Amino acid sequence: MTMLAAPSILAFDIFGTVVDWHGSIVGEMQTLHPQVDADAFALAWRAGYQPAMQRVRSGELGWTRIDILHRMILDELLPKFGLDHLGELERAELNRVWHRLDPWPDTVAGLTRLRTRFTICSLSNGNIGLLTNMAKRAGLPWDCILSAEVFRAYKPDPATYLGVADTFDVPPEGVMLVAAHQDDLAAARNCGLATAYIERPLEFGAANVKDVSPDAANTWHARDLVNLAELLGC
Amino acid sequence: MTMLAAPSILAFDIFGTVVDWHGSIVGEMQTLHPQVDADAFALAWRAGYQPAMQRVRSGELGWTRIDILHRMILDELLPKFGLDHLGELERAELNRVWHRLDPWPDTVAGLTRLRTRFTICSLSNGNIGLLTNMAKRAGLPWDCILSAEVFRAYKPDPATYLGVADTFDVPPEGVMLVAAHQDDLAAARNCGLATAYIERPLEFGAANVKDVSPDAANTWHARDLVNLAELLGC
Repeated sequence: MTMLAAPSILAFDIFGTVVDWHGSIVGEMQTLHPQVDADAFALAWRAGYQPAMQRVRSGELGWTRIDILHRMILDELLPKFGLDHLGELERAELNRVWHRLDPWPDTVAGLTRLRTRFTICSLSNGNIGLLTNMAKRAGLPWDCILSAEVFRAYKPDPATYLGVADTFDVPPEGVMLVAAHQDDLAAARNCGLATAYIERPLEFGAANVKDVSPDAANTWHARDLVNLAELLGC
Repeated sequence: MTMLAAPSILAFDIFGTVVDWHGSIVGEMQTLHPQVDADAFALAWRAGYQPAMQRVRSGELGWTRIDILHRMILDELLPKFGLDHLGELERAELNRVWHRLDPWPDTVAGLTRLRTRFTICSLSNGNIGLLTNMAKRAGLPWDCILSAEVFRAYKPDPATYLGVADTFDVPPEGVMLVAAHQDDLAAARNCGLATAYIERPLEFGAANVKDVSPDAANTWHARDLVNLAELLGC
């Protein structure tokens, strides 16, 4: 009989799980460009994300940071929303909105509690600089910022999930991925990690409420990060 | 005329600059193995560090974490100090002393003040897991943990100093290396970074007081990290 190690490391997906990308982008757009459909703009920007990473995964692009991918998507998007006139400085500043995403209301309290019993780190496809700027602004109390950039591979590549275990010199079951996305959790589970699903019904905005049904394959299912702290006895 | 960017990122050397490796190892050895000359043991372990990294730099060893190098040095050292009888568990536990190094008395207060005006990160040859465990135990308030492990190169390789600037998308002069070692600072300066020297006269113990004379080539010279915070107006 094999004794499984209880997780000592919690690795968190970021976009949608820890921070509200949709609400944050909508908020900035409504202030800066009130004539634009901010909901459609935010959704279109995010929709370009997986195809852009796929160009890296397929080898069409060499290793590329998310900051650069976000900017490529943005440049394609602006004409479609009547914003082709934005200059370089305005584009660069708008692209940095991904560094300024707001946490969900429960995030800082939940992470602070979880941190008392676990080592908590990010595991995001966002680059290290983006994640650091976000954490400093939002007060996210990470013990360590891990990113696809450290492993030179994007989730759901096994190199990312197993990379966390390797970084901390623990077996895969010593790490739990915390995410609001079942596909991310399934890939982690296939690598031997424990998994915790976080409900984020408003990830895509109030007009596009997300199905947050439990998947029994996950180790835990929590309403939010404070609830996860409660479930884990923190 | 080129405008130089003022540093917004402070990158800290760790062993000797932020934490007291000599005092911490001496303390553990005096408790665990009081018959051993703890001062000589600590110095010998640390003395193996540069030669071990040189085996990686030269290509004799592939990329190897400091945890593994520390263990290789330890295994060679134990017979010389009459500790050849230590078993695997005791060796692994002793090797983890590098994760348990104590900060200097000014470290946490200084970093906490510096963090209010700068993004502060480690830049150490220590591996990410070691640095994370150390920070969690000692309460080091990093915004981000950077390591030779991220750049797959050991200091003083330019890839490490320039890697910090690249990570945060700033020019080299946007980063300042903070270290108690003039050779580390000189290598950073050659890459265009600003530099701050920290006096750590007791790095090698009270029996081996270190010369902490200023080098005018550094941007700043500070007694300790609280003094650096004062000098930088934090």
